[in-house]
Amino acid sequence: MFKNILIIGCGLIGSSILKDSISKKISKNIYVFEKSKKNISFIKKIDKKVKFLKKIDHQVSEMDLIVLCTHMSQYNDIIKKLQKYVSLKNIITDTSSTKRNIQRLIEKNKKLKKIFILSHPIAGSEMSGPEHGGKNLFKDKWCIIIKKNDKLNKSSKKVEIFWKKLGSKIIFMNSVDHDKIFSITSHLPHLIAYNLVKTAIDFQKKNKKNIIKFSAGGLRDFSRTAASNEIMWRDIFFNNKDNIIKSINIFIENLNSLKRQIKNENNKNILKILKNSKRVRKKIIELKQDISKPNFGRDLI
Amino acid sequence: MFKNILIIGCGLIGSSILKDSISKKISKNIYVFEKSKKNISFIKKIDKKVKFLKKIDHQVSEMDLIVLCTHMSQYNDIIKKLQKYVSLKNIITDTSSTKRNIQRLIEKNKKLKKIFILSHPIAGSEMSGPEHGGKNLFKDKWCIIIKKNDKLNKSSKKVEIFWKKLGSKIIFMNSVDHDKIFSITSHLPHLIAYNLVKTAIDFQKKNKKNIIKFSAGGLRDFSRTAASNEIMWRDIFFNNKDNIIKSINIFIENLNSLKRQIKNENNKNILKILKNSKRVRKKIIELKQDISKPNFGRDLI
Repeated sequence: MFKNILIIGCGLIGSSILKDSISKKISKNIYVFEKSKKNISFIKKIDKKVKFLKKIDHQVSEMDLIVLCTHMSQYNDIIKKLQKYVSLKNIITDTSSTKRNIQRLIEKNKKLKKIFILSHPIAGSEMSGPEHGGKNLFKDKWCIIIKKNDKLNKSSKKVEIFWKKLGSKIIFMNSVDHDKIFSITSHLPHLIAYNLVKTAIDFQKKNKKNIIKFSAGGLRDFSRTAASNEIMWRDIFFNNKDNIIKSINIFIENLNSLKRQIKNENNKNILKILKNSKRVRKKIIELKQDISKPNFGRDLI
Repeated sequence: MFKNILIIGCGLIGSSILKDSISKKISKNIYVFEKSKKNISFIKKIDKKVKFLKKIDHQVSEMDLIVLCTHMSQYNDIIKKLQKYVSLKNIITDTSSTKRNIQRLIEKNKKLKKIFILSHPIAGSEMSGPEHGGKNLFKDKWCIIIKKNDKLNKSSKKVEIFWKKLGSKIIFMNSVDHDKIFSITSHLPHLIAYNLVKTAIDFQKKNKKNIIKFSAGGLRDFSRTAASNEIMWRDIFFNNKDNIIKSINIFIENLNSLKRQIKNENNKNILKILKNSKRVRKKIIELKQDISKPNFGRDLI
């Protein structure tokens, strides 16, 4: 399908793309640009045929598809280097979790505007690094491809085919909607999880009680989310801060209202909120966004 | 070990106790008091030897151990009936998630004060009903047994042996500490999960966008917690409201501080909070309160 693919940054996402690209024979040659020596030695074990670029230079002009998989805070530097060497023959895509900021970066350059198609595969875990990357990470997962001014250009088609080959289901969206929607379904949940764990740590320090060992009653689920990579999430929080701050404000409003209802023992309202929640869970399972087994199946013996 | 055990209320917890009591041969006879016809027909299928009490009457005086497993809002009625028939020969225990309120109930009666030993097994799932009860639900899980005035009475020993037979690890605690600790490790996480799902529903209604289908980015984990039984959780929120309201206030304080730090892009502080969170996750896994597999193992193919 492709002759040369270049994966820039080979952590959890990059290495998963690498493994799938090899097993699905998506490209004749697969190149990797990765700074970490530890990661490189790990990637070498995946497949001996993987080629490494030592720097971003004229060689990138030979790549049919370049996939950016680094932390967002590295995008600026990498994009500056890429734009020196790429031509209209190349296609670039990425995997970042916020999109308006990356769109602003590429809009500055006429070439990039045409060949850079933003994408966001909704896949990952609390683990990072190529040792946790796996085949089929993208299978049956959504991949958002960003439309510019609600239009698709030619390069989009190739990016769409690429993600479909990895098993993703494609949805096209503009970057404004993207950043708004994921501020609620992904960024706020992570922020809340971090905040809950912080609240538990503060309580433990203040009360000098070992409470972490009782986390199976609920806290442990949040602690998984709150164990996600700190660089990735700092980048997300900073780059989508307008939407995230709005989400926090609505969340706090709702929480204050819930607090009042508990204080007044408002039976009817509380039961309504709790029952509505259960319906959302049902919907999430129907939409195959989660497994239906109790406790995610983890307690079953 | 026991001659007669009575399980009052046979939902998820009661039916799990029933199954374990049968398989571990804890009692010669096992009696069940259950109001729901649907549940009764389900329990009959578990084992034909299970005996059913039609009402709480003089027969309870023959029980060596009575285990209350109903919703807390039914405790008042049941305890009133029990105290008519029990004597100092009986032992009663329970499984509720808040303890000061139940302690207040039994303290009113001289007999109950001596024979009622409060306990709280830290086990369960978002599912309710006997169809979801299972063997080994309590295996290697904490079970809190409540000390009165930091003292244990004779009946405690038998209750301790009972839970140990089911595989639980025992911790003794007073009810004040119990309600404080679990307001942070269990009640607040559930409340926050309900509130997050409500915030997502509100967003979806206001923006007329289907966001639930993108819940794999974080929301889905919270939706599992927020699918827990609404009667159980209303009872917990109302009965531990002083501690829960304090927890909410600290949570909101922390969240406002996190919001300010995101607004100001306070890199150092944000990274510190996010890294500390990861350490708590590590501790939780070390303490065997959760499995170590990424994504709770649910995404692995």
